[in-house]
Amino acid sequence: AVRLRVREALGAREAAGEVKVQGWVRSVRSQKEVLFLHINDGSSLENLQVVADPSLENRDLTFGSAVEVQGKLVKSPHRMQNMELKAETIRVVGPCDTWSFPLKMKERHPLEYVRQFPHLRCRSNTLGSLLRIRSEATAAIHAFFQNNGYVHIHTPIITSNDCEGAGELFQIEVSWARESAEKTYFFNVPAFLTVSGQLHLEVMAGAFTHVFTFGPTFRAENSQSRRHLAEFYMVEAELSFTESLQDVMQVMEDLFKTATNSVLSKCPRDVELFHKYIAPAQKVINVLVFFFFSCRISYNEAVEILKQASQTFTFKPEWGCDLQTEHEKYLVKHCGDVPVFVINYPYDLKPFYMRDNEDEPQHTVAAVDLLVPGIGELCGGSLREERLPFLESRLQRYLDLRKFGSVPHGGFGMGFERYLQCVLGVDNIKDVIPFPRFSHSCLL
Amino acid sequence: AVRLRVREALGAREAAGEVKVQGWVRSVRSQKEVLFLHINDGSSLENLQVVADPSLENRDLTFGSAVEVQGKLVKSPHRMQNMELKAETIRVVGPCDTWSFPLKMKERHPLEYVRQFPHLRCRSNTLGSLLRIRSEATAAIHAFFQNNGYVHIHTPIITSNDCEGAGELFQIEVSWARESAEKTYFFNVPAFLTVSGQLHLEVMAGAFTHVFTFGPTFRAENSQSRRHLAEFYMVEAELSFTESLQDVMQVMEDLFKTATNSVLSKCPRDVELFHKYIAPAQKVINVLVFFFFSCRISYNEAVEILKQASQTFTFKPEWGCDLQTEHEKYLVKHCGDVPVFVINYPYDLKPFYMRDNEDEPQHTVAAVDLLVPGIGELCGGSLREERLPFLESRLQRYLDLRKFGSVPHGGFGMGFERYLQCVLGVDNIKDVIPFPRFSHSCLL
Repeated sequence: AVRLRVREALGAREAAGEVKVQGWVRSVRSQKEVLFLHINDGSSLENLQVVADPSLENRDLTFGSAVEVQGKLVKSPHRMQNMELKAETIRVVGPCDTWSFPLKMKERHPLEYVRQFPHLRCRSNTLGSLLRIRSEATAAIHAFFQNNGYVHIHTPIITSNDCEGAGELFQIEVSWARESAEKTYFFNVPAFLTVSGQLHLEVMAGAFTHVFTFGPTFRAENSQSRRHLAEFYMVEAELSFTESLQDVMQVMEDLFKTATNSVLSKCPRDVELFHKYIAPAQKVINVLVFFFFSCRISYNEAVEILKQASQTFTFKPEWGCDLQTEHEKYLVKHCGDVPVFVINYPYDLKPFYMRDNEDEPQHTVAAVDLLVPGIGELCGGSLREERLPFLESRLQRYLDLRKFGSVPHGGFGMGFERYLQCVLGVDNIKDVIPFPRFSHSCLL
Repeated sequence: AVRLRVREALGAREAAGEVKVQGWVRSVRSQKEVLFLHINDGSSLENLQVVADPSLENRDLTFGSAVEVQGKLVKSPHRMQNMELKAETIRVVGPCDTWSFPLKMKERHPLEYVRQFPHLRCRSNTLGSLLRIRSEATAAIHAFFQNNGYVHIHTPIITSNDCEGAGELFQIEVSWARESAEKTYFFNVPAFLTVSGQLHLEVMAGAFTHVFTFGPTFRAENSQSRRHLAEFYMVEAELSFTESLQDVMQVMEDLFKTATNSVLSKCPRDVELFHKYIAPAQKVINVLVFFFFSCRISYNEAVEILKQASQTFTFKPEWGCDLQTEHEKYLVKHCGDVPVFVINYPYDLKPFYMRDNEDEPQHTVAAVDLLVPGIGELCGGSLREERLPFLESRLQRYLDLRKFGSVPHGGFGMGFERYLQCVLGVDNIKDVIPFPRFSHSCLL
């Protein structure tokens, strides 16, 4: 018998004799004359209907059990499905104690509920869909960069430098160093989990004009918010010989559109599940909105818009202050609930490596943030300061890179979980990552 | 002017007016009547030859400097190259102080030498080729699994459990926990850097029949050997409803062949550089060898072969003892210098989750190691124990997975750096990763 996945069986063009399908039982319905099963194997949200003689039923054939069904694949008489499997044999490969199994047949379990079972929640419809979408989005992002001639770099996880300022770093040590009387370090120096691959990508941007990385980054923020994780994924890109923020914004936009297009076309049903049942009820997700990137404003303009707002903010908008979440939300709304690029931030707000616009008295750097509906900041980027005198008295190796064929360059990072939240309308970031890590919680 | 990458310019079918090429100068040769430059932008190993009027030369136009050249792309009169660029303007975007720049024009720097400059070695030919190959191999591995219906899972980096036994783990903490008088943990429990994504993949293999991960893993081994890194990349896959080691071996083999085929066809010149100049002189790398996977022997047979060897080993071969590097080398040679699968290892040598073969008195488990010429162990895998009684009195969550629709499954991991070493003939693992981390060293 030919082994078929559920997705293949459902998509088959014509009937087929002697096929074998393996998966987990999602429902059992026994009637006098016929036994109906629904089988899922994770290859799609849809289940395959199995039609069998009631004599094939047995005590172990329950919701959640693992089965192997052999039989004939036939056109289904039902309007809602293309094919069904007429079972000849049903073998229970692994029984399931439905009483203690925390998922129940045909119930829509809330995300908060399944979050309690990190080792079992992937068997719920919602997490199943999420993980398929996450996998497709990951592949689409890799493909986007590869098709545009970017070299993929594995930037390091363990690093001895601190990209954006101390305080939120995880430090690494080994047990024997911990116990020894004198201070010893495995790497001879204190080592940390990376907060960004940017500095390492900049190294590579001195040899390859287009590079990207897509890996885990870490923040030791002691926060239980629905917006933060201790471990999350970032897509980061760096472009050499780039003299305008427009170039950087164009890549952000193309990346977003290409990845989203790919997810929508490869997993339409999975995305639909989120938009129908998970996205906050008050807002209907219209993904087409994400394809309009018309709004590009400067930080100066943003502050003016906020100052003229009739709304009162907890944080009074003021030139030189960071935009707060409430400000970002207002700006997105003001622009018509589309993604908004905000460019040219105050010099004093941004890290040392961003390119000086030399525009006194309101001194700014060539930085850009991409704000999206429902999420706030999705991407952050900038032109990097390539001019040695502007960087003098800073990090030695960073300076070195400017000495030997320095080029104007720029780049950005996109939070992958925030991207997924944004496209799917998921409120809590813990629901878009397979194994969430945050303060006080590292299950499994 | 149309911006072209060097690879595009070299591959152009016909002449083109007004193009712009950006990159770094790899050689300057000034003659009375003509100025020759070679430009590289990381898109290929080959440089683009620029032909210019000597009047365009200037003091800053040196080896290593970053330039932008505009001109006409024309057919080259030279046999060795297809196209060359007739410069109209040359702009030095970033000068390079050749005196202090550690790379020198037209020199083949040894790998040991460039290793001292983690932020500049990507500008050497060898590391440039390596990083392009690494990027292609990464893409090929993702594509292989995606094309075969595997769901990609980001298994966690930070974990509270220890997959293979303690001692070699990096522990994580935050500075405020370090300084507090009483013991506090960020995650409430001790947390470590992952040594393998297997247990988390097994969780997912209970919902998706085919899953894979490709990410960093960590070992705190206090070793300076050319075989070990503290941070390295693993490709891991898990297959459900798999009842034979053959299935697992087939995936290893297909993965290896597909990735290698892709690298050979996408980066032939880069691979050639390694086989010509880097691989140990005594062995000519014949990559075709990697496409014969004829040798499959059991551990029992392996021990017999070793016992009958005329060679004397430092470690005497004995049933029940682990295979040492010297043994692995002998076996590979014995089989004709092709990859060798060794299957069915002693029960007591392997971790608890491997499937019991129930074959007393010589009690074994369904484990497999793939040994390759020049490297030793490249992949390790096994069938997993899916039977609850065999696992009782072990990890609670691991048991839980066996209660609710348990299925026979198996999987494997492949060390990505070892794969690259194997295909390219690179002796030291530090030369196949962008930023090596090992004991006493975490540069950049």
